[in-house]
Amino acid sequence: MRSAAYVGDQRIAIQTSEPQDPAPGQVRLRVAYTGLCGTDLHILHGAMDARVELPAVIGHEMSGTIDALGDGVDGWSVGDPVTVMPLAWDGTCPACLAGNEHICQNLDFIGIDSPGSLQPLWNVPASVLVALPEGLSLTHAALVEPVAVSVHDVRRSQLAPGEKAVVIGGGPIGVLIATTAREFGGDVVVVEIDPGRRQAVADLGFTTLDPTADDQVAWVEEWTGGAGADVVFEVSGAAAAVLGATALCKVRGRLVVVAIHPEPRPIDLQRLFWRELTIIGARVYQRQDFETAVDLVARGVIPADLLITSVVPLDRTADAFAELGAGRAMKILVDVQSGADA
Amino acid sequence: MRSAAYVGDQRIAIQTSEPQDPAPGQVRLRVAYTGLCGTDLHILHGAMDARVELPAVIGHEMSGTIDALGDGVDGWSVGDPVTVMPLAWDGTCPACLAGNEHICQNLDFIGIDSPGSLQPLWNVPASVLVALPEGLSLTHAALVEPVAVSVHDVRRSQLAPGEKAVVIGGGPIGVLIATTAREFGGDVVVVEIDPGRRQAVADLGFTTLDPTADDQVAWVEEWTGGAGADVVFEVSGAAAAVLGATALCKVRGRLVVVAIHPEPRPIDLQRLFWRELTIIGARVYQRQDFETAVDLVARGVIPADLLITSVVPLDRTADAFAELGAGRAMKILVDVQSGADA
Repeated sequence: MRSAAYVGDQRIAIQTSEPQDPAPGQVRLRVAYTGLCGTDLHILHGAMDARVELPAVIGHEMSGTIDALGDGVDGWSVGDPVTVMPLAWDGTCPACLAGNEHICQNLDFIGIDSPGSLQPLWNVPASVLVALPEGLSLTHAALVEPVAVSVHDVRRSQLAPGEKAVVIGGGPIGVLIATTAREFGGDVVVVEIDPGRRQAVADLGFTTLDPTADDQVAWVEEWTGGAGADVVFEVSGAAAAVLGATALCKVRGRLVVVAIHPEPRPIDLQRLFWRELTIIGARVYQRQDFETAVDLVARGVIPADLLITSVVPLDRTADAFAELGAGRAMKILVDVQSGADA
Repeated sequence: MRSAAYVGDQRIAIQTSEPQDPAPGQVRLRVAYTGLCGTDLHILHGAMDARVELPAVIGHEMSGTIDALGDGVDGWSVGDPVTVMPLAWDGTCPACLAGNEHICQNLDFIGIDSPGSLQPLWNVPASVLVALPEGLSLTHAALVEPVAVSVHDVRRSQLAPGEKAVVIGGGPIGVLIATTAREFGGDVVVVEIDPGRRQAVADLGFTTLDPTADDQVAWVEEWTGGAGADVVFEVSGAAAAVLGATALCKVRGRLVVVAIHPEPRPIDLQRLFWRELTIIGARVYQRQDFETAVDLVARGVIPADLLITSVVPLDRTADAFAELGAGRAMKILVDVQSGADA
C-alpha cells in the first residue's frame, strides 16, 4: 500500500509498505479521509523534528471504517464507521492519576509520536475509536477531531449561554470555536486580519472585526455596555494579539490561549491583576468533547462543506500542504484510498 | 493636627490641618497605627503620580478606634476598636452589578485615590469599617489589611488541603501568603533571593529555596513525585520569576500573579498550553477576606511580632520609607498619635 510520509527537509514523499495485521487490542482501519492541519504543517516545516521519527506517516484528523479486529477487541464490528481520538496515555503518571489522561505527562499523540492516518490501512488501539452515526458522510466526519478541539476550548472557557465571546483568528479552528461557542449560546465576534478569511467568517453569519482598521477595544466596550467580553479565545498565534487580548476582557473575564506560541509572549499582567482575569491553557480534548463533536457534525451545526476547501488524492498530499501553508485553504482532506494501491 | 503627606519629588512632608467633623454616614477614626507597604512606596517613588492628588495623605493599613459618629451611622459606638477595608465602589458599573464590587471599574482605593490613615483623625464611610475583637492589640491589628490580601490570594488559588504550593518572593506579602496557605492546609515552600529574608522565612518554619543556587524545577519535581506544584504564587515582581513560574506547575496547576508587573512580561504560553495551566489575577480583597484575616491575626496564626520590624513616630515616616525602600525591613508601623499634636 502507499502512504504519505514526512521525510525531513520540508518534504512529503509517497512510500510503499505492507499492511500489518492488527495486534491484540488493536483494530485495523480502512482510512477514508485525512484532514491536514496546522500541526501537520509545523511537522513538515521541521518545527517538531525532535519529536518525530523519520520517515513519519503523519495525519490524525480522519474518518474511515473498521477493516479487521485484533484479538480481544469487543464491541466493534468490521465495517463500522469510526473516527479516532488520537491520544494514548500511560495511565500511571501524576496527570493520569489525577484524571487528566488527555494531557498525560508521557502522552503518545498518534499521528505525531506514532504513525498516523495518511495510509490506507492503519492499526490503532481499539480504545481510541469513536463511533460515527449512520448517515454521517465520511468527508464531514473527517472534521470531528478539529471540532473536538473547539468543543474542548469552549468547555475550558466555561462559556455560559448569553455570554459574549471574542475569537481572535478566523482560520479553521477559530471558525470552529466561533461556531461551537454560538451553538452553546454565546454571542460571538471574530477578529481576522485576512480579508478573504474575514469574508468567509462573515458568510457564516458572524460579526467580524479587522484588527488593522477597527478599534477592537472601543468596539468591544460598546458591544458589552462598557463591561468587556466575558471570554476571549486567542487563536491567531500572533504576539500582538495575545498582548492586546487582555484589554478586551471584562472584570473576571477569561482568556483562553488556543494557538501555539512557541516563544514566550509578553502578557499585560497589570491588566490581569487589575481586572482579576484568568488565562486558561487548553490542549487537545477529552472523550466527551469527541462525543459532542460527533453530534455537532452529524446535526449539521458545523458548516462542513464551507470549511472543506478541497479533497485531493493521496499523491497530491505535498501540493495540499503547499496550499495550506500559503493560507489559500481552510481545510483540505486527503482521499487516502484514492491511488493507494497504484 | 499633624499628618504625613506625599508632596511629590519622592518626598514625604509633615503638614498641619484641622480635624473635620464626620459627614453623614461617616465615622471619624482615631488612628493608632498605620503600616507602610509597597504600594505606598510606589506612590512615594512617583510611579502613581497620575492617580494621586498632592499633597496626598497616604496610608491604608491601619488600626484605631472610633472617635465620633456622623449622622445616620448605626451599629457602631465611640471607642470601638476597628480597622478599615479601604475600598469604596460606585455600585453601578458592570463589575459591581456582576458582584465584583471589590474591583469596581471606578474603584476609590482609600489612601491612594482619597486621603489615607497617616493622620491622627481620619474620616471614612462607616461602610468600610471592620470590627476588631476585644483583646487584639492595635499593633497586631494594623496587619489585618495585608493579611486580607494574602487570604484573597489563597482563596483565588482554590488551594485545597494537602496541596503543594510554591511562593516566589519572601517579603511581607509572600510570608503572609505562605502562612495563610499553610493554615489552609497547604504544604508550602518559599523561594527568596535575599539571604536575610530567606533566613527570616526559614525561622517561621518554612522550607526555603535560593533561586540563585537551587534548581527550583528539579526540587519541585522531586518534592511532588514528578507532578509539579498544585499552586504557584508569584509575589516577587521579577520578570525572570514569572517566566520560570509556569515550569513549576503541575498539569492543570494554577499560577496566581500577586506582584505588580508594570510592564508586560514574557510568559511561557507553550507550557500554559502543554499542561493546561491557569494563570489567575488577584487584586485586593472582599469582606470575607477581611473577616478571615481578623480571625487569623487574633488567633496568633500570623507571626505579627516577627513581621513588625519597628514602630516609629509620625515624624519619622520619611525615614521609615527609606528603610523599607532599602529592603531593610519587613513591616514598619507608624504610631500616628505619637507627636500628632506637636
